[in-house]
Amino acid sequence: MTANDERDVKARYGGWVLVAGASAGLGAAFARESARLGFDVVLLARRADALEDTAASIRAEYGVATRCIVADLAQHDIADVVAAQTNDLDIGVLVYNAAAELYGPFLTLDHDVHRTNIAVNCFAPTALAEHFGARMRDRGRGAIAIVSSLAALQGARYLTIYAASKAYELILAEGLWEEFGDFGVDALAYVVGATVSTSWYGAAPTAYADAGELSALQARILQPATSEDVAARLFSVLHLGPRQYSNLADEAAAQEAAAKPRAEVVQTMAAVTVGLARFAHLPKPPARRG
Amino acid sequence: MTANDERDVKARYGGWVLVAGASAGLGAAFARESARLGFDVVLLARRADALEDTAASIRAEYGVATRCIVADLAQHDIADVVAAQTNDLDIGVLVYNAAAELYGPFLTLDHDVHRTNIAVNCFAPTALAEHFGARMRDRGRGAIAIVSSLAALQGARYLTIYAASKAYELILAEGLWEEFGDFGVDALAYVVGATVSTSWYGAAPTAYADAGELSALQARILQPATSEDVAARLFSVLHLGPRQYSNLADEAAAQEAAAKPRAEVVQTMAAVTVGLARFAHLPKPPARRG
Repeated sequence: MTANDERDVKARYGGWVLVAGASAGLGAAFARESARLGFDVVLLARRADALEDTAASIRAEYGVATRCIVADLAQHDIADVVAAQTNDLDIGVLVYNAAAELYGPFLTLDHDVHRTNIAVNCFAPTALAEHFGARMRDRGRGAIAIVSSLAALQGARYLTIYAASKAYELILAEGLWEEFGDFGVDALAYVVGATVSTSWYGAAPTAYADAGELSALQARILQPATSEDVAARLFSVLHLGPRQYSNLADEAAAQEAAAKPRAEVVQTMAAVTVGLARFAHLPKPPARRG
Repeated sequence: MTANDERDVKARYGGWVLVAGASAGLGAAFARESARLGFDVVLLARRADALEDTAASIRAEYGVATRCIVADLAQHDIADVVAAQTNDLDIGVLVYNAAAELYGPFLTLDHDVHRTNIAVNCFAPTALAEHFGARMRDRGRGAIAIVSSLAALQGARYLTIYAASKAYELILAEGLWEEFGDFGVDALAYVVGATVSTSWYGAAPTAYADAGELSALQARILQPATSEDVAARLFSVLHLGPRQYSNLADEAAAQEAAAKPRAEVVQTMAAVTVGLARFAHLPKPPARRG
């Protein structure tokens, strides 16, 4: 993105950026990139200390205003809580980045964990899109980015509910793009692939070095991007909905996969997700079928 | 499906079929087809009278046993309620057919309506798949079919949450297929297109007769199948997961759409969903953007 494009982002949306799920990793990178582009930033996450550290660092580096909201995106009244703490601000952009990441066989995970994942990945982005979508409609501009995942594009062994709920977010954001365009508000489904900062993918290329021959898709999935690159790209494609990928190789791989038999697509993803257990503190996967 | 194949379906899974969302339309057709194939049938829905009428008709025609469960799939304890009323039965197949269908601009629908849709289309199938998946694993066979929709394949104007939650179901079922295969249990995402019995699509071809030139995809979407055909096909492809379509023309259209720019795919669906308002008692859509 050129310096001129960057000024355009702030001019296009105005106001503050609210990043939901902002305390660390990719979320912190979105918050930092927002500040770099000249936005004031609201950071929302559960952990007050991590949130305040990130906010302090952003204030020091970019001289923007910040506000921290300590809240759990799984709580039923999340939209009310966020509204109460942002109604005095002019929110120009919502970046919904939160995710409850669960790993393990579907039948071994706790029922409540599934419920939490659905609350965080389905209900909360819907409720926040409702609240901020209406406000952005009234102010005549704005953008809502919902961060989805390559996992959303097919069923994903050991990430079954994560993948399903990321698919919800993907299709939700595409629908919002179509509707919000009526009143000049942008919406984007941002499909993120492997990113260095996440707990699972960080060590992936090494962990997979002995995994034999990787498919082209697997190799791409396991070539993680930096959080900074993923965050910078979001703002350069924010007006180019309904769906954009955090990197073009992922998009090409997804297009290629879309033409293949579903069993093959699902099994390719499974080979990746099964491999995750090698380098993270995760339950040992059971035997595969033959 | 030949008579021989039909006997195979009952032999492959055994026991009862539980149809969630069974009182009318497509759900009733799934229940009826189950009985025709020789299964005893549990029918679950909210309306006791409609449920009992359908069950009585099935008993009279096929001489199978039936049981009715009157329950709301939006209730939090749905899995416990269903478990309590089926623990004495040998459930061989779960067909999750329920859906909360909402039509209207995203920002005009009530917050609670979104929550109900997420409960019915995301939480309930997850909770029931958990309960029956574990039981089927223990009995060594079985099948779970989750009925999704063509709307799940892209954002859908005025059906935003419906489409998103149907995408959840689509990817959930694909993931279940991959995991449940380990212990010989089938799972299927069944992508259903326009069906005569549904309230919206029934009149579609007529309503669209004056809509000018339809795209190939729109024409296919608006050429509704009968509930009977959609139900019969489900059982003939139930073992052929992870994803099957209720008709092959829909599958071809979906494959074709998958290669196109997302904006075009979303806008093509929007032309269809906007048209729905012409022949159903639905809110008048606002002006489109230019």
